[in-house]
Amino acid sequence: MHSSPRSPAVADDDLPDLVRAELVSFFEARQAALRTSVDEFAEATDSLIELVLGGGKRLRPTFAWWGWRAAGGEPSSPQARSVLRAASALELIQGCALVHDDLMDDSPRRRGLPTVHVTFAERHRRSGWATGSDRFGMAAAVLLGDLSLAWADDMLRESGLSTTAAARAARPWQAMRTEMLAGQYLDMLAQVRGDEDPETALRIDRLKSAAYTVERPLHLGAAIAGAPPEVVDGLRAYGRAVGVAFQLRDDQLGVFGDPAVTGKPAGDDLREGKRTLLMSIGMRRAAEQANDSASAILRAAVGNAELDEDGVAAARAVLLDLGAVAEVEEEIDRLTDQASTELATTPITSVARERLIGLAASATRRDH
Amino acid sequence: MHSSPRSPAVADDDLPDLVRAELVSFFEARQAALRTSVDEFAEATDSLIELVLGGGKRLRPTFAWWGWRAAGGEPSSPQARSVLRAASALELIQGCALVHDDLMDDSPRRRGLPTVHVTFAERHRRSGWATGSDRFGMAAAVLLGDLSLAWADDMLRESGLSTTAAARAARPWQAMRTEMLAGQYLDMLAQVRGDEDPETALRIDRLKSAAYTVERPLHLGAAIAGAPPEVVDGLRAYGRAVGVAFQLRDDQLGVFGDPAVTGKPAGDDLREGKRTLLMSIGMRRAAEQANDSASAILRAAVGNAELDEDGVAAARAVLLDLGAVAEVEEEIDRLTDQASTELATTPITSVARERLIGLAASATRRDH
Repeated sequence: MHSSPRSPAVADDDLPDLVRAELVSFFEARQAALRTSVDEFAEATDSLIELVLGGGKRLRPTFAWWGWRAAGGEPSSPQARSVLRAASALELIQGCALVHDDLMDDSPRRRGLPTVHVTFAERHRRSGWATGSDRFGMAAAVLLGDLSLAWADDMLRESGLSTTAAARAARPWQAMRTEMLAGQYLDMLAQVRGDEDPETALRIDRLKSAAYTVERPLHLGAAIAGAPPEVVDGLRAYGRAVGVAFQLRDDQLGVFGDPAVTGKPAGDDLREGKRTLLMSIGMRRAAEQANDSASAILRAAVGNAELDEDGVAAARAVLLDLGAVAEVEEEIDRLTDQASTELATTPITSVARERLIGLAASATRRDH
Repeated sequence: MHSSPRSPAVADDDLPDLVRAELVSFFEARQAALRTSVDEFAEATDSLIELVLGGGKRLRPTFAWWGWRAAGGEPSSPQARSVLRAASALELIQGCALVHDDLMDDSPRRRGLPTVHVTFAERHRRSGWATGSDRFGMAAAVLLGDLSLAWADDMLRESGLSTTAAARAARPWQAMRTEMLAGQYLDMLAQVRGDEDPETALRIDRLKSAAYTVERPLHLGAAIAGAPPEVVDGLRAYGRAVGVAFQLRDDQLGVFGDPAVTGKPAGDDLREGKRTLLMSIGMRRAAEQANDSASAILRAAVGNAELDEDGVAAARAVLLDLGAVAEVEEEIDRLTDQASTELATTPITSVARERLIGLAASATRRDH
């Protein structure tokens, strides 16, 4: 069989590059169409495109691909290219999530670049236009995020999936977008309410990290392949476990990660005031043990943009002493084991089982 | 044939109510599903639903329906209900456009109710939550607008259209969303740039009012019916003309409308600083005639939130004297004639031709 370096036959080992290539060709066609009608908007889409192409891990397309492979999809089959395109469309939903999330949080940078709303506010200032730079930045981010969401649907619709496969894809696709938005809303609501309950932190992890990032992408791939219910259910159960474990590892790294390895300042999650399960457990344990000094140290750290290295070190020590770190580590282990058990009892292809176990391990045992 | 009061057989004369009923049943199913998983978000969707159900004219679904009828679609046919659902999905795209537009413009009210971002900011204040009421309002509006856009796709996908009809619907659906967003972006860009060129005003009208509101909905309906190219082209040409004429009438009413009839304060467009074709022509004519006092009166009026009745009267007199009003009226007449000519030479059903001529007349010769 003929196989070019970009052929789907080698897709298993080359997913991030193949996904990027699909996105590039989608963007080229869309920008070309826009340039003939609304050149100004075509130009504006550069920022969105740069952001989407700048992503690296392509986690969601990877899980979608392996959901399809788990249910018997073959990289050498004629459908493989369509599946790759449909999986790549997930990066456009993520494009919307990132642009709008950064706007809502007023984050200055993302993937090493200024965020979209900041880019357009800056462009406004440099142009010496009328007042309202921040409003212009906000509006551009709102519209480009919307475009990314609309384009995600377009890319799925144009992926070339058969009508039966496309019909099967509808349910996980629909659920995934709603869960992503519901997760963002719940996260924001918990923030403004000052909700420190571990159960709330876990619900947010289940929606944003598990459902949206792992479970539904796997479900999408399996649905495209026409997987039977026991395969879909097994993959989803694996996805729920791995997705939460992945987030818990992220939370640990956000406080304990080595800046030289993570590429982020030490204790950044503390400064940003992220309400993670780790912090929730710490707060709860401090309260249960009536340990006022531990409570005070954690409260002084969370959301304190000026927190210095000593403050980070103190918070770390408290989280360790309270047993919060150990509890989260145990939960990661439990979830990782659970994910393996689910896979072991689910009738999927052995190549996919092996990869999915590998993905679970690298997602939960990484140091960055 | 059995025909209930809600049967599509009577749909021609009952479109706004039928569209509303389809939206109600879609919302009920979605909210029920959300309530079991993320009750907080289900509750938040009330504001979006209230806004979408509060709409009255249902212009876009109406044009989609008549596009389908023009190409031979029959209200008594088994497809009619699916077409009605697909047409109703346009109101959810519009839901996104309204929520996000009001956020970008920081508009306080819409359809007689506080706008979404204002509602959530107010809810935040009343709850005595941590700081950031406006940020909470903004985030809720971003997420609910996103949800409306995602739901629009879901509703189209679940409309029950045949796979061939759905495939034909893809192109106008895709174009419509992109044109809506491009129009909003261009509008905003023209505002910050202080672009007063009549050509820019006309380009924005073509995207936001013509393409998004009339041309593409007609195109969508015709595509669903499997219309041949000459029918699609004729309907689209009609739609482009009527859509711009509709907007030009809106612009005239925004300055000259009788508050007792329009329900809006006299001269509201002036206070809001809308850059309409009418104003662009006025500005250009004043400049061409080196009529400095006319220029000064217009500039003093546009975007002046404190403009009193005398100021409105002065601006009206100037627009009349300069011939800007007459030029816009001539353009409305020309476009309305053009729309009729297009319909006369397009092979569509006579029932649709009659209705579309009626819609053109009521869109361009109304007083509110």
